[in-house]
Amino acid sequence: MESLNYSISMAGTAAFAITAVLAVAPRGIDLFGVCVLGIVTAIGGGTLRDVILNVPVFWAADMNYIWVALAASVAAFLAQSLFTRKEMFALLLYIDGLAGALFAIQAADKVLALQFGLPLAPILLAIITAIGGGLIRDVLAGRQNLLMSREIYAVPVLFGSTLFVVAMAYIPQHRSLAGISCVLAIFAFRAAAIHWHWCIPDCLSTGPKTD
Amino acid sequence: MESLNYSISMAGTAAFAITAVLAVAPRGIDLFGVCVLGIVTAIGGGTLRDVILNVPVFWAADMNYIWVALAASVAAFLAQSLFTRKEMFALLLYIDGLAGALFAIQAADKVLALQFGLPLAPILLAIITAIGGGLIRDVLAGRQNLLMSREIYAVPVLFGSTLFVVAMAYIPQHRSLAGISCVLAIFAFRAAAIHWHWCIPDCLSTGPKTD
Amino acid sequence: MESLNYSISMAGTAAFAITAVLAVAPRGIDLFGVCVLGIVTAIGGGTLRDVILNVPVFWAADMNYIWVALAASVAAFLAQSLFTRKEMFALLLYIDGLAGALFAIQAADKVLALQFGLPLAPILLAIITAIGGGLIRDVLAGRQNLLMSREIYAVPVLFGSTLFVVAMAYIPQHRSLAGISCVLAIFAFRAAAIHWHWCIPDCLSTGPKTD
Repeated sequence: MESLNYSISMAGTAAFAITAVLAVAPRGIDLFGVCVLGIVTAIGGGTLRDVILNVPVFWAADMNYIWVALAASVAAFLAQSLFTRKEMFALLLYIDGLAGALFAIQAADKVLALQFGLPLAPILLAIITAIGGGLIRDVLAGRQNLLMSREIYAVPVLFGSTLFVVAMAYIPQHRSLAGISCVLAIFAFRAAAIHWHWCIPDCLSTGPKTD
Repeated sequence: MESLNYSISMAGTAAFAITAVLAVAPRGIDLFGVCVLGIVTAIGGGTLRDVILNVPVFWAADMNYIWVALAASVAAFLAQSLFTRKEMFALLLYIDGLAGALFAIQAADKVLALQFGLPLAPILLAIITAIGGGLIRDVLAGRQNLLMSREIYAVPVLFGSTLFVVAMAYIPQHRSLAGISCVLAIFAFRAAAIHWHWCIPDCLSTGPKTD
Repeated sequence: MESLNYSISMAGTAAFAITAVLAVAPRGIDLFGVCVLGIVTAIGGGTLRDVILNVPVFWAADMNYIWVALAASVAAFLAQSLFTRKEMFALLLYIDGLAGALFAIQAADKVLALQFGLPLAPILLAIITAIGGGLIRDVLAGRQNLLMSREIYAVPVLFGSTLFVVAMAYIPQHRSLAGISCVLAIFAFRAAAIHWHWCIPDCLSTGPKTD
């Protein structure tokens, strides 16, 4: 179980870094910038969470997160054409979604264990963990970030982490089961959004219509 | 006194969130993004301050800040046309100014109590508390932020918090009176700037003239 | 030795603030914004490092960093034409490079002393210390930052701090000598890049070619 958790974390860290590199590559960026943005995207969200929690950052105790993000960034730089192939990119998007789901529930679990700012902080920090790295990347790369798009990326995290917090209040003895279920629920929601190109409807958006 | 302080804090948190939503709404943003930016604007400055002070973030001990910011964001999303009415928007600007003044002096007071980086840190962190949330919002929304405008928003905070630090050095026994006076002084300066459309004069600016 | 270290730190703090003001001045910015961006650029990188390390920020114990950054920002605002003169600007670039080199090795040394996230964190945090303030400045000023350019600024820091970490693993008894050598190595690399207008070659960059 721990080992599966860890494997998905590492695959997810790599996926976060690779999708980051593919996102910024069209803007013209050198290998150094690629590595910085890959690492920042992969560990930025969790770092923000730990800084707000005032606990040691998670990667200080396990450098594998940095090594994997670095290796994935270099690989993505060297083999851009491989990763932008249609099937490969789709696969990456799903791994990225699964990893985001896992990181979010890991974050909610960590915040609950610290009894920090219940009941809202576990949900807020799950969202920050899942999307924080990508937001920092987009700000540094001068790209529009997902808060300003209608992509359905963070909303599944909101639902899943809320569900997890509620579950922990009522069935704390089933922590593992609740955790796995919520990760899968977030992933299923995100996968459906990717597959059917769902986006936030107009009635829940302001400003100019999209079509 | 405490209760008045708390009421203004909550009204100010709501005003920060509402003015944030009105600022980003024209760019086209969905309800999720609206809530994230509303909350970030309302609590971002104080969070930056507490992270730099290396103390627990203020909202972890009182979730009302988050609930109020969330409710105000949703309300602003649903009732944009109400809040953009001329008199209503003017009222919001004044509440926002009063809240910024209060948050700044609360911050200076907190930093002074911690004996952190005297004498400059209380002033710096008062400014960060008052404008930090808005800066993060503008960066995430891709808007020009107030550092790059000539709006007189932070300068009253600079004067008021400097005055408070000086007062605490000479008349520490009159902390409440000094605090209230400085909040009112900041607010009066800001209100005058809103009312008479004051902006920073050309001689104190670089680059292209505004007129 | 300590005193030389401190003198370079202060000259570097001033150089960071002055180059920041010169960088943002063409965008039209008032004296208040100039001071905020000057101070943020000068102390932002070290602040990020200390927040990630979860230790008190370095400037809380020595307000001279803030006073020097503030005075340098005001001076740069008042005497822009002096600092943009060709020889003066070149001098500033070299001082900025020397200061970045010193701040980076100071950071690596601090992280090594804390035994934090070895062996990668000293290198990562050296880079963050050297470029973090400039990145925050560019984000706040809406400028393209150096991650998206091909300027050779951070790569020397990467090499020099890696060298320092390796040296500390094998010859920890020669800490001062290793530190000085690595600062000089970074500075020499950076100075060469300034002098001969080196930039990252096309083969190490993505996207549109520069020529």
